[in-house]
Amino acid sequence: VILVDGALHEGSTAPFDYADRGLTLGDGLFETMIAFDGRVHRLDDHLDRIGVGLSTIGMVVPRARLAADVGAMAARTGATGGVLRLTVTRGAGARGLAPPDHPNPTVIVSLAPFDPRLMMQPVTLAVANTVRRNDRSPASRLKTLGYLDHILALAEARRAGAGDALVLDTRDRVACASVANVFRIVAGRLETPPLTDAVLPGVIRARVLSLADTAGLVAVERSLSVADLMAADAVFLTNSVRLAQPVTAIDGQGLAEVGRGQVAVLFAALAADVAAGTGTDPRGVA
Amino acid sequence: VILVDGALHEGSTAPFDYADRGLTLGDGLFETMIAFDGRVHRLDDHLDRIGVGLSTIGMVVPRARLAADVGAMAARTGATGGVLRLTVTRGAGARGLAPPDHPNPTVIVSLAPFDPRLMMQPVTLAVANTVRRNDRSPASRLKTLGYLDHILALAEARRAGAGDALVLDTRDRVACASVANVFRIVAGRLETPPLTDAVLPGVIRARVLSLADTAGLVAVERSLSVADLMAADAVFLTNSVRLAQPVTAIDGQGLAEVGRGQVAVLFAALAADVAAGTGTDPRGVA
Repeated sequence: VILVDGALHEGSTAPFDYADRGLTLGDGLFETMIAFDGRVHRLDDHLDRIGVGLSTIGMVVPRARLAADVGAMAARTGATGGVLRLTVTRGAGARGLAPPDHPNPTVIVSLAPFDPRLMMQPVTLAVANTVRRNDRSPASRLKTLGYLDHILALAEARRAGAGDALVLDTRDRVACASVANVFRIVAGRLETPPLTDAVLPGVIRARVLSLADTAGLVAVERSLSVADLMAADAVFLTNSVRLAQPVTAIDGQGLAEVGRGQVAVLFAALAADVAAGTGTDPRGVA
Repeated sequence: VILVDGALHEGSTAPFDYADRGLTLGDGLFETMIAFDGRVHRLDDHLDRIGVGLSTIGMVVPRARLAADVGAMAARTGATGGVLRLTVTRGAGARGLAPPDHPNPTVIVSLAPFDPRLMMQPVTLAVANTVRRNDRSPASRLKTLGYLDHILALAEARRAGAGDALVLDTRDRVACASVANVFRIVAGRLETPPLTDAVLPGVIRARVLSLADTAGLVAVERSLSVADLMAADAVFLTNSVRLAQPVTAIDGQGLAEVGRGQVAVLFAALAADVAAGTGTDPRGVA
């Protein structure tokens, strides 16, 4: 099912204005969230983030409208959960980049199954050599519709035999994986790049930083090089669907595992956080 | 009217698969062309360019299919012309960045009026300070669906009272305007940045370079700074719809006009080129 401007359609096909700037120009943002039994994990955080993003790109959409549409789709989730995607575009416009004087935004919510096997699934990375993430644009801190750079990075990583891409910014600092934030654990510290390194302010990224002390770690935002990751006690990824995933190798070189126990502690804290927010511990979903 | 996968629909609204990666991920490319009486200007150049682009992003769409769809829409143009937009996406996909094993691309062609007044319309520019174009991605040389960076740049320029944005790359070299290539004329030379400076290989850009000698100029591709533009005999923009436009000021500072006659000669050559290709001189369109 798909919810378009509050109307529910069976399947994923429904009427669409092909002049929608989301399609023609990538003029929009999205959020991905998990929900169980109608309850969305960290919904306020996601609505906060897309609200800041919409403001950054000069769009106004009432938060209550987004909350209502997400809520309507979340109501279709049960004990096995679901993955919600909220997409907001600037709506239809005439030819050219200038937005209409009075935009009529499009709000879309889709629902996909939640797959618990992706949580903590070990992953290998390959550094994307042909693509850098553009830290010189505010869009690098937004969850925009323009993912072609990361599609190219992922394709390159898969050709190299890795599971995901390690994407650097234009100064060759670590930015992220194709759809996840990157952390390292080293010498009692939990480190992740600052937002200025073309980093999306991930909802789970923020949660992990605030939960660092549960694993006896001190959270630090600092720029990281690939060598910093190679030298870590552990490296892991976070996002809203997979929560956490340990990285086992980068460019074919195995990483240390001495920090893996602390990654497990952080994942347990994230899972408990989901249980507190939604009533369902995702570790118990079959 | 809109043509979607070969089917014509009245208006711009038609059925759409909301799982289309063009909308969800900006996974696609487009071309903008002008046509008169069914004849598309430089159609082969546009099909060549999107063909290279599709290959770069790992997509396969038969050229004959694209030519047929563009031709079907072009057949609706008359003596006053039209602007065709060909959009190609990777089609529907499951959640995530990895493309489906067997993508089913979506091919869309739209038609808008041709406005001859935009040709040679003088324009002022403002340097986009908050956005740099990402020369560190192959996508910067492709006409992708992801135009949010330029939407932000244009909005900034409009707030500064200018007509268009002057977009720099991450090394602060001139890349382009929001939807046009940039040229300068100086001391008998016609200069434009090389593609490696985050430059789209514009169809009209290539035509202007090959027509330089009609204005007594020697064509040179070299990196340009904002100061280089300020010091020019003339600065102008090119794209497939406006052909050429003189730039009169950058950041409120008026530019020299001594090279404006050569811009006019180049524009006349471009217009004659359109006449040769389509049978209609766009300067004669009311």
